[in-house]
Amino acid sequence: MTAAIDFYFDFSSPYGYFASTRIDELAQKYGRFVAWHPILLGVVFKTTGSSPLPQIPLKGEYCWRDFERTARFHGIEYKRPAHFPLPTTHAARAMLWLQNHHGADTATAFARSVYHALFVDDINIAEPAEIAKLAEPLGVDVLAMDAGATSYQIKDQLKAEIEVAMAKGVFGSPFVIIDGEPFWGFDRFNQIEDHLKRGRQTELRAVTSVDGNKEKKPA
Amino acid sequence: MTAAIDFYFDFSSPYGYFASTRIDELAQKYGRFVAWHPILLGVVFKTTGSSPLPQIPLKGEYCWRDFERTARFHGIEYKRPAHFPLPTTHAARAMLWLQNHHGADTATAFARSVYHALFVDDINIAEPAEIAKLAEPLGVDVLAMDAGATSYQIKDQLKAEIEVAMAKGVFGSPFVIIDGEPFWGFDRFNQIEDHLKRGRQTELRAVTSVDGNKEKKPA
Repeated sequence: MTAAIDFYFDFSSPYGYFASTRIDELAQKYGRFVAWHPILLGVVFKTTGSSPLPQIPLKGEYCWRDFERTARFHGIEYKRPAHFPLPTTHAARAMLWLQNHHGADTATAFARSVYHALFVDDINIAEPAEIAKLAEPLGVDVLAMDAGATSYQIKDQLKAEIEVAMAKGVFGSPFVIIDGEPFWGFDRFNQIEDHLKRGRQTELRAVTSVDGNKEKKPA
Repeated sequence: MTAAIDFYFDFSSPYGYFASTRIDELAQKYGRFVAWHPILLGVVFKTTGSSPLPQIPLKGEYCWRDFERTARFHGIEYKRPAHFPLPTTHAARAMLWLQNHHGADTATAFARSVYHALFVDDINIAEPAEIAKLAEPLGVDVLAMDAGATSYQIKDQLKAEIEVAMAKGVFGSPFVIIDGEPFWGFDRFNQIEDHLKRGRQTELRAVTSVDGNKEKKPA
């Protein structure tokens, strides 16, 4: 039970941002690692027929209120962004390039910066120049990143990554898959924790039965 | 702070059913009363452009899994219904007639029976005969109820009730409004409780400041 927890998100998703502030801490508590997967909801919505939340009649007005209340309820920093909704293609491609060339840790640190920039500092992360500014402190060659993020190779990779995600049933953000069990929404973090807890209990029982005398007191 | 909590639901909504098993208990804990409002998601979806969850690609397969897992997580009885989605117009109209002619308590008891019939006993609640069977044990004249539920007066009332709900921002099921604050989804019950708790604290502080010496120790 040490396979990565898959965490899918779109950089423009407020609930994805909320999840990003908690997912690693939660996974570590149960000895698990998180694989971060940027996706594009715009592509997914072509299949599901959905629209960005704030553009849906009635739901739109509600969701702005819910973003703020949910952030407050969970003690997460949040400021309503002025640039919204906005294209997140460049940010997602830059993240894939970072995963390929600098590894998961740098890419995840970058993803946190992008989310913080959009949902706390109100920065227009659709701008490649802003994305470069966020990558620079991580010791990244931002010209190489920019060239990589706009290459056909990375464009094709992002398309394929989203196809894989949808084939696994991903249709929203945040979306978490743990050992084949799918969870949609930041609301499901309590069920995710419950799932991880049960998984660990099963694992502990298995270890005990292999090393059979563990539960007996020494004579 | 004793105004009713407004609880909107469609009889075919599994999350509405889950909410129906908890809403009164939660309200009573904070000295509040619940006004139950049956609505028709089919009418609401004409405005929001949504579809019943199980009919949406990708989301559809997920939601059946989530219904079961969520019921288990919260310890709520649930069995996947064979008749689904199904029209809930007759059930909603019968409930309005019961509210008009037998009062809120009988109508709410009826609503609980309808939800239990669909989501535990797998009964086709689209059938007026099944609805009559559920109302009979409540001492209701089922012939009068059936006539009432199919009358123009009740048809018009349900339409108008749904218009009122949408004017207040309701777009899903369950939907709860407390003192103007809207909450969508059974997932929001923790935020609802938080809201009720804060409301009561405000009220208690107000009482204390009127009766100024309450916090001082006796001399």
